Amino acid sequence: MHLNYQLLIDALRVPNMFKVPDHQVAGHEARDGKLGPLVDDLGCFYKPLQDDDRGSKELAFYTKFSSMPEITSHIRRFFPTFHGVQTLAASDGSGPRPHLVLQDVVFGRVNPSVVDIKIGSRTWYPQASEDYVNRCLKKDRETTSLLLGFRISGLKIYGGDRSGFWKPEKKVVQSFTLQDVRFVLRKFVSCNLETPDSVTDPDCSFASAVYGGTGGILSQLLELKEWFEDQTMFHFNSCSVLMVYEKESVLRGETSGAEVKLIDFAHVTEGDGVIDHNFLGGLCSLIKFISDIVNDTEKCWN
Amino acid sequence: MHLNYQLLIDALRVPNMFKVPDHQVAGHEARDGKLGPLVDDLGCFYKPLQDDDRGSKELAFYTKFSSMPEITSHIRRFFPTFHGVQTLAASDGSGPRPHLVLQDVVFGRVNPSVVDIKIGSRTWYPQASEDYVNRCLKKDRETTSLLLGFRISGLKIYGGDRSGFWKPEKKVVQSFTLQDVRFVLRKFVSCNLETPDSVTDPDCSFASAVYGGTGGILSQLLELKEWFEDQTMFHFNSCSVLMVYEKESVLRGETSGAEVKLIDFAHVTEGDGVIDHNFLGGLCSLIKFISDIVNDTEKCWN
Repeated sequence: MHLNYQLLIDALRVPNMFKVPDHQVAGHEARDGKLGPLVDDLGCFYKPLQDDDRGSKELAFYTKFSSMPEITSHIRRFFPTFHGVQTLAASDGSGPRPHLVLQDVVFGRVNPSVVDIKIGSRTWYPQASEDYVNRCLKKDRETTSLLLGFRISGLKIYGGDRSGFWKPEKKVVQSFTLQDVRFVLRKFVSCNLETPDSVTDPDCSFASAVYGGTGGILSQLLELKEWFEDQTMFHFNSCSVLMVYEKESVLRGETSGAEVKLIDFAHVTEGDGVIDHNFLGGLCSLIKFISDIVNDTEKCWN
Repeated sequence: MHLNYQLLIDALRVPNMFKVPDHQVAGHEARDGKLGPLVDDLGCFYKPLQDDDRGSKELAFYTKFSSMPEITSHIRRFFPTFHGVQTLAASDGSGPRPHLVLQDVVFGRVNPSVVDIKIGSRTWYPQASEDYVNRCLKKDRETTSLLLGFRISGLKIYGGDRSGFWKPEKKVVQSFTLQDVRFVLRKFVSCNLETPDSVTDPDCSFASAVYGGTGGILSQLLELKEWFEDQTMFHFNSCSVLMVYEKESVLRGETSGAEVKLIDFAHVTEGDGVIDHNFLGGLCSLIKFISDIVNDTEKCWN
């Protein structure tokens, strides 16, 4: 009965409601006949369940997390809302496939600037296979993960009408150094980006509006930190922090719409009464980078 | 001239002033003709400079740290005072050897209970040799380091006149599991230890006197944490937190003499503007363990 009902829903949905997300910055992309996530025009994000155990693990996380009364709305808002599983035509043309139905975290935003930051100096976990451990360890050492406790996985920064978005190639992002990360986190909140690839020193003119202040990214990250100092339910291996805002809103004098979301839970493990010190350490490192930018900017303006 | 003066000092010191420390719980020990640290009766701890670069690196750390005006006394008190280098007869009979002269952090204490906790889920660092990295990684995975963000390296707990000290063998300590660590951290502040190796549930009757309260271990660890959230000068790879107190003082109704010290700086590296997220994460995990014990105890008593 459940299956038939599901098929009915699927049949009622018009395929052209689904499209490739405009503002995805990392992960598999549903372009050129590849398998990747889709979005609809109602604010949902459809993430195909992978054939290996990643899909089932992410589904298990969302199912468990959604049903835990001890997670307050205060913390829940940092996670995409979970709407269940739905079978729909996969983006690679391989036919119907179950997808996680999640909140599209950039839905309704106009020209959002987005950065995806994978948190943790270690992206592997004890239970993983030796092969997986070695591959992750190699990547953690080659990128900034080991040194900084996080690495930038992808980004797009809106420069303005003329310059559009700055979205560096995956290979460029993967080779970011400490200096590049510092530069990108400054550029993310800067106004002087009309030549998007310029090496001009970012002016950080939006730092206080986006990173600082009540409700700004820094204060959201600090709330997350407080939770991570205490929660021992989950270890968020290889998860990302997504930071989003809208430059044009700031320019219009409106709120920046700055938002922090956690995404990618395919490798979450049980905490067993121990805090996620790996995520927490990386998060504190990111917080230090952002607060340095806020403090530097305040110094300049005062 | 400097050398002659040094020799004169050495000559003036009577060899029997030096002895093997009574309360060392981890690291190389100066027993059975081996090379290890010595103490004198004036409160100094003499740590032999190793032939490899560990000795020179630890000396470099102490020299730099001692001379930094930005380190306030508030933080400096968590580190052993550094008194320079002195050449004295090595404990292994190999002749004169330079030793770091440090504060003996348990000097003057009667029957101190001591636990040495190596902080960090990762004890290696990027610049180390592949061989060193692999050995550390193996040990981090075999012990609780990877899981908890720290491991107990050694301990001695005073049980009372009759039972004396409980000081488990190195091999026992190295095989501690999550449950053992939780047990030891409770046992460390318990009174019901007359049969020292008993499996009786620790009563944690000293938890509030030793871990809790103003000046207790928890509040000291929280002060350290605050510093680590901000300091980007050093990465304290493979350092230990030493926790010390005197049971008999508590029983007499005096202060517990609870003290936290950082020790072992042979693998400290420069921070280069990045916080030590690896140490901080592990420290936060330890803090959670200790605060759980304090909270559980308070619940029982209220």
